[in-house]
Amino acid sequence: VNNREPIITLTTDFGGRDGYVGIVRGIILALNPDARLVDIAHDLPPFNIETAAYLLKNCHGAFPPGTVHLAVVDPGVGTDRAPVLIETRSYYLIGPDNGLFGFLSPREIRRVIVLNSGKYFSRDISRTFHARDIFAPAAGYLSLGIDPTELGPARNKINREVIVRPRRTSRGLVGRVVYVDRFGNLASSITEKNIPQLPVTVYVNGVRVGRLRKTFGSVKPGRPVAYINSFGHLEIAVNRGSAAEYFGLTVSSGAEILIASD
Amino acid sequence: VNNREPIITLTTDFGGRDGYVGIVRGIILALNPDARLVDIAHDLPPFNIETAAYLLKNCHGAFPPGTVHLAVVDPGVGTDRAPVLIETRSYYLIGPDNGLFGFLSPREIRRVIVLNSGKYFSRDISRTFHARDIFAPAAGYLSLGIDPTELGPARNKINREVIVRPRRTSRGLVGRVVYVDRFGNLASSITEKNIPQLPVTVYVNGVRVGRLRKTFGSVKPGRPVAYINSFGHLEIAVNRGSAAEYFGLTVSSGAEILIASD
Amino acid sequence: VNNREPIITLTTDFGGRDGYVGIVRGIILALNPDARLVDIAHDLPPFNIETAAYLLKNCHGAFPPGTVHLAVVDPGVGTDRAPVLIETRSYYLIGPDNGLFGFLSPREIRRVIVLNSGKYFSRDISRTFHARDIFAPAAGYLSLGIDPTELGPARNKINREVIVRPRRTSRGLVGRVVYVDRFGNLASSITEKNIPQLPVTVYVNGVRVGRLRKTFGSVKPGRPVAYINSFGHLEIAVNRGSAAEYFGLTVSSGAEILIASD
Repeated sequence: VNNREPIITLTTDFGGRDGYVGIVRGIILALNPDARLVDIAHDLPPFNIETAAYLLKNCHGAFPPGTVHLAVVDPGVGTDRAPVLIETRSYYLIGPDNGLFGFLSPREIRRVIVLNSGKYFSRDISRTFHARDIFAPAAGYLSLGIDPTELGPARNKINREVIVRPRRTSRGLVGRVVYVDRFGNLASSITEKNIPQLPVTVYVNGVRVGRLRKTFGSVKPGRPVAYINSFGHLEIAVNRGSAAEYFGLTVSSGAEILIASD
Repeated sequence: VNNREPIITLTTDFGGRDGYVGIVRGIILALNPDARLVDIAHDLPPFNIETAAYLLKNCHGAFPPGTVHLAVVDPGVGTDRAPVLIETRSYYLIGPDNGLFGFLSPREIRRVIVLNSGKYFSRDISRTFHARDIFAPAAGYLSLGIDPTELGPARNKINREVIVRPRRTSRGLVGRVVYVDRFGNLASSITEKNIPQLPVTVYVNGVRVGRLRKTFGSVKPGRPVAYINSFGHLEIAVNRGSAAEYFGLTVSSGAEILIASD
Repeated sequence: VNNREPIITLTTDFGGRDGYVGIVRGIILALNPDARLVDIAHDLPPFNIETAAYLLKNCHGAFPPGTVHLAVVDPGVGTDRAPVLIETRSYYLIGPDNGLFGFLSPREIRRVIVLNSGKYFSRDISRTFHARDIFAPAAGYLSLGIDPTELGPARNKINREVIVRPRRTSRGLVGRVVYVDRFGNLASSITEKNIPQLPVTVYVNGVRVGRLRKTFGSVKPGRPVAYINSFGHLEIAVNRGSAAEYFGLTVSSGAEILIASD
């Protein structure tokens, strides 16, 4: 963290209705009034770690090196998942080690610190609001130039259980819907490099979408289409409509995406 | 206000769909381009002063001393409620004196200024958008170092009518739901220090929730639970669910919370 | 752009659920870490250019001169509408030339640049995310002081097809609802200066609202009222209620507003 005014991004499922994000901002600024707070998103589906991980994977790399990414989607707050700081080749990521950071490849990661230093974090932390009591202070101290190792002991690995890679089956490559965006587009766990040699046909929960196309404008309005989205993931959309409505899906539906070679 | 780059927080019920907050930001930055604007929340329930007061009470103290808090939930805009600047021991609060700041204790308050100086505020202000015409300019000028007394005359008291303290009855201590958060948790007007000697049993609109517990993880998924939330208020949640749905309540339901000694 | 820390505003229909705005912020900060990002609004109705133009018209002038306004509501992304930078007497506006900036009068505009410089924008831009690939880089480079003419060739005109001016008919002046705000107020394309000599009577889709009034408090709670809003446009509200609900309208209903002389 060597910016003159360090950038700290915030990604949560806290929403815009409540003051939870506001408090996090206050805590950070109270420690370091020069921190630059930048929102990635706060209206993520509550408690959905997989969706948050997909979003964070796609967004965090857009920021300048040295950025601190604070991310909290934490259904297990108060249980034994560890609060961590992960230092990668370019960034710092702070949040619960519940799979949220499982998209980071082992060779990107320089070190992992468990945030439990009695010097920096009160012993009397709440059971329900670690963003306020642990993650925001960690981001604030880090942005002041405190060495990560002061914030707690190192550990070797991070939790990767949430990220489910697509698997090859006799029917074809099977993945799942991991993200439904505002427009009802269905992003899947299947990336461009996973896809077998073209032509291929895409199915959502067994319903045929059609061939993989270049863009969602390739089909008539109201028709579904599969293409590679701007993050390199296979996505299903409906031209000028909502694929989520078309297929009757939400991000928690656990819908299956199948890619079959023709 | 002695920060090099003064922090101004924004709390409104203007939502994220419209440009009202954007205009407020523009007005402040046009007066003081060095102001640091920080959002507390904007998707508060429209016109609900009690809910906004609960949120502001819990959030404002997280920010560094000298922070200017601009807050606007103002169903009576254009009527005779006064636009005010309140200076406390640590902060400046700016907004309508309609009860929104009634959570401030008399000894916290250093002075109250009515924002009506003809020098700083146009005589030709709109009847519907005081955030633009009065509150944003007041925050901008204040952040430039203008003395609060220049912005209008002092008054003695603030409006406290919205904050209803819990009352002791023959049945027990009676309060009300003042906040429903994104997750459907029901925060009440009852604070930790109001609660009689344990054990106690908590009821929502006459329906038994159970004993006061340490955390919402103390009950089975799908079951309601009462505990002290991270702001020191009694709150009712449903483990892995929504208490608002469970009890069929919204923040405007005016639900009664009862605490009975066993 | 001569601010020490240039202000860049963001207006989109990307919403707060997804990371699209976050990526745009990251791209700008990666080019210019000193940029000050300020949100106007992100939860605009998807793909509605007319509504976004109304909002932008009303908000952009509140900001200090030199502000860069990045605005993206872009149903035609990937088609042949040009990505543009418009320099006005006071501001820079960046976004798709699809009518979004049609509210700017010809004499306000100093020059229009088509953003297609091979030096600054990759040839390999996505078909679906020009905010990331063109508009954010343009704002970032501009804020660094790069001359607009370096970003692409000049053109003469901008697209004005979306802005439909009210027309005089035998029944009276006819406009349309162009904006429905969070509170259900219906803003129209009719401005104060369009309105014929008073008294006049206002109709929504043929239903009588009543005389033009000074403010929405002029009628009883639950009753509709027409008045000039704080942006100088004729607006219909329901006192302490929602005019959108009262008349059963959304912004896409294309409702007619009629003003008849008495």
